[in-house]
Amino acid sequence: MSGAYVHGYQPRESERLHDQAGTLVKLLHSDTSYVPGSVVLEAGCGTGAQTITLARNSPGARITSVDISADSLEEAKARADAAGLTNVQFRQADIFALPFNPGSFDHVFVCFVLEHLSRPSEALLRLKDLLKPGGTITVIEGDHGSAYFHPDNAAARQAIACLVELQRMSGGNAMIGRQLHPLLFHAGFDAVYVWPRIVYVDSSRPDLVDGFTRKTFTAMVEGVRDRAIDAGLLDAETFDKGIRALYQTAEPDGVFCYTFFKALGEKARADPLR
Amino acid sequence: MSGAYVHGYQPRESERLHDQAGTLVKLLHSDTSYVPGSVVLEAGCGTGAQTITLARNSPGARITSVDISADSLEEAKARADAAGLTNVQFRQADIFALPFNPGSFDHVFVCFVLEHLSRPSEALLRLKDLLKPGGTITVIEGDHGSAYFHPDNAAARQAIACLVELQRMSGGNAMIGRQLHPLLFHAGFDAVYVWPRIVYVDSSRPDLVDGFTRKTFTAMVEGVRDRAIDAGLLDAETFDKGIRALYQTAEPDGVFCYTFFKALGEKARADPLR
Repeated sequence: MSGAYVHGYQPRESERLHDQAGTLVKLLHSDTSYVPGSVVLEAGCGTGAQTITLARNSPGARITSVDISADSLEEAKARADAAGLTNVQFRQADIFALPFNPGSFDHVFVCFVLEHLSRPSEALLRLKDLLKPGGTITVIEGDHGSAYFHPDNAAARQAIACLVELQRMSGGNAMIGRQLHPLLFHAGFDAVYVWPRIVYVDSSRPDLVDGFTRKTFTAMVEGVRDRAIDAGLLDAETFDKGIRALYQTAEPDGVFCYTFFKALGEKARADPLR
Repeated sequence: MSGAYVHGYQPRESERLHDQAGTLVKLLHSDTSYVPGSVVLEAGCGTGAQTITLARNSPGARITSVDISADSLEEAKARADAAGLTNVQFRQADIFALPFNPGSFDHVFVCFVLEHLSRPSEALLRLKDLLKPGGTITVIEGDHGSAYFHPDNAAARQAIACLVELQRMSGGNAMIGRQLHPLLFHAGFDAVYVWPRIVYVDSSRPDLVDGFTRKTFTAMVEGVRDRAIDAGLLDAETFDKGIRALYQTAEPDGVFCYTFFKALGEKARADPLR
């Protein structure tokens, strides 16, 4: 950078700095903060990757984080302890059979969970039951069909399609991000609003090149190599070619784009059907 | 994208399209404003679709808008006159042979132009020559490969691919948006920064459903139907199925996403090679 500032033109210097300092955490979480005293359910906390940020951004909220996996919960608890969190309690439970009374929570937070469920609509209905009238649900999901890049490459697209297909075969939906609006709307939430959160990566954003293009997205695709080949979805040669092409998008001339979707919905304050 | 705009035929319709156009204008232009006295080149103004906004956002700048087509320039002039603009002059010229001395401009603005050129890098080099040291270039381009939607549909994707292929056959690149960073960087611009501008459309944004999903993007794809079929890129049945699927993304449960890319680059203040 030359350091020269063009006066009068608006290069959004602060936005640049924000972008460069920004992390995925900021991109996804910065606008979620619950007021002190709020009773919040994190449904499907996994190993607590989002729990730490959630709890730190709402230090006065009382958060209950549930997951179906006891092993994941153990890891989540250890993370929360290491982070010194005191406002989170963990509980093992199935999202389709949550051990709480209707109207127990002011807010529900769901991140990277619906993509794994074969009945996301039913999960949303159950979570709505647990909300107080006027309470909100926040849902964050990715969408692997939103990935595109330069140089474009057919094998890379095929390798990504393997990931989508494998998730479909295990009952999930790797392209659920784009569907959040109709999903929440049909689950009966009011005032549903969806904000796309695009992760745009070029060589001027080295942290994202390494942290997102290489170590998050490409590593994730690479991680299903054997399953994809075993399932006959793609031959090893093409898959490996695709992975090399994805790594090429992290080279100096490469560009990588991916979009997360964040949705907010409200439970009606007066629900005549209830 | 600009040529694909379908004008409304009813007063109410025009009003809605105006609102929608306002949304896109804001998305693409709101952060471009040149200080009074700036000498600005708009390279490839076409029929002046962007010129009006550009001139209004920088009332004190002196703007020269050039295009290779005399017919387009006539329309642009008429638009500018109708808008009462006094800070724009129009001139017919080829972007590869612009009739200006090196260092004539403080800023260059290029919108929906590079996508049509077989040598976009060369155009950028020539535009850089026309900038004063410290001057900026702003480039806005779409990327048809950034389009994805719900419900997803293979025929719709094939129909869009026809548009991309036809543009490639005429020497252009309909997926140039994602390439702006390497393009500007290799043209020798400093401090290149790219901001994606995603157009996210669901039923809670009716102006965009109608104005963007239906009347801009789908109409544009529909517009190449005969050329695509004549060129043997796709059979009529599949193409029409794809168009129907695209219109379906504008129904209440549909979602449509498209990303524009806006890039800013600076000409080095002291260029030892010059």
